[in-house]
Amino acid sequence: MSSPIQKNFVEKNAEYASKFTQGHLALPPAKKYLVLTCMDARIDPAAAFGIDLGDAHVIRNAGASAKDAQRSIIISEQLLGTKEIILVKHTGCGMLTFSNEDAHGLVKKNLGPGAATAIATLDFLPFSDLEAAVRRDVQFLKTTATVPDDVTVSGWVYEVETGKVRQVE
Amino acid sequence: MSSPIQKNFVEKNAEYASKFTQGHLALPPAKKYLVLTCMDARIDPAAAFGIDLGDAHVIRNAGASAKDAQRSIIISEQLLGTKEIILVKHTGCGMLTFSNEDAHGLVKKNLGPGAATAIATLDFLPFSDLEAAVRRDVQFLKTTATVPDDVTVSGWVYEVETGKVRQVE
Repeated sequence: MSSPIQKNFVEKNAEYASKFTQGHLALPPAKKYLVLTCMDARIDPAAAFGIDLGDAHVIRNAGASAKDAQRSIIISEQLLGTKEIILVKHTGCGMLTFSNEDAHGLVKKNLGPGAATAIATLDFLPFSDLEAAVRRDVQFLKTTATVPDDVTVSGWVYEVETGKVRQVE
Repeated sequence: MSSPIQKNFVEKNAEYASKFTQGHLALPPAKKYLVLTCMDARIDPAAAFGIDLGDAHVIRNAGASAKDAQRSIIISEQLLGTKEIILVKHTGCGMLTFSNEDAHGLVKKNLGPGAATAIATLDFLPFSDLEAAVRRDVQFLKTTATVPDDVTVSGWVYEVETGKVRQVE
């Protein structure tokens, strides 16, 4: 039995596929860059950041964490030729609203001690200052041994209130 | 000095922002679901999967790995109310084309022994059978202690050649 979410997914995809003309695109991103941004529901990277289909990898996680994206970034630059990283965090991010203690407490309360123990060492990577978090992640990407020096890195904030980006680093 | 990629990003964003009318959207996803898919450049989740702005979290990493997305998934369901997960891997995925040994070998060759040592224990999470990988990740999400039983999980394949999705699990 399909859920309403699944039915919508299948119906909307059928519309998309009926007009689809880009089955010829190659695996490596044509413009050799990646965008790392947040999973936030208010961000549509292709539309807001002008990414044409086939041009760039898009990595998304809670808070646009560079550390959490390390595996994907290495694959993007070592196996698929990425030469530039655009890191975009955003105003009103959920990661500004809780602490590691809050998150671990919620897991214990809602999911029980088994779940709490299973993720006892997990860092949820929240942050309290948006622009400082952008700068810290850019610094991480520029200094980590797994991102070579010839990869260009920049850091940005996307404003969910206005749809605008601004450069931080 | 801006790179051509950065210039394009700023110019396309200015066009987007000039027509932006959705600054009122709330932080939690309105339709309480998340889509977990690959970072692949040939996937535009909003367009291909019918996700309206504000409706769903979108998590993307190399291969649409559920294990790699664990932190983001917990935040989505424990802090932001997500009740359903749509997992979408795709044909022609880069993760089908290499082994952990290949990736570690490339890092050592291109980035040196320091980088190789820094990620010696990293699992790149490649897979050799697409549908089996979808089933394994759905099973992981359905059985892990950190995803409660009332969260609906389904697994799909997106065909980059046709733009179509099909359900696997």
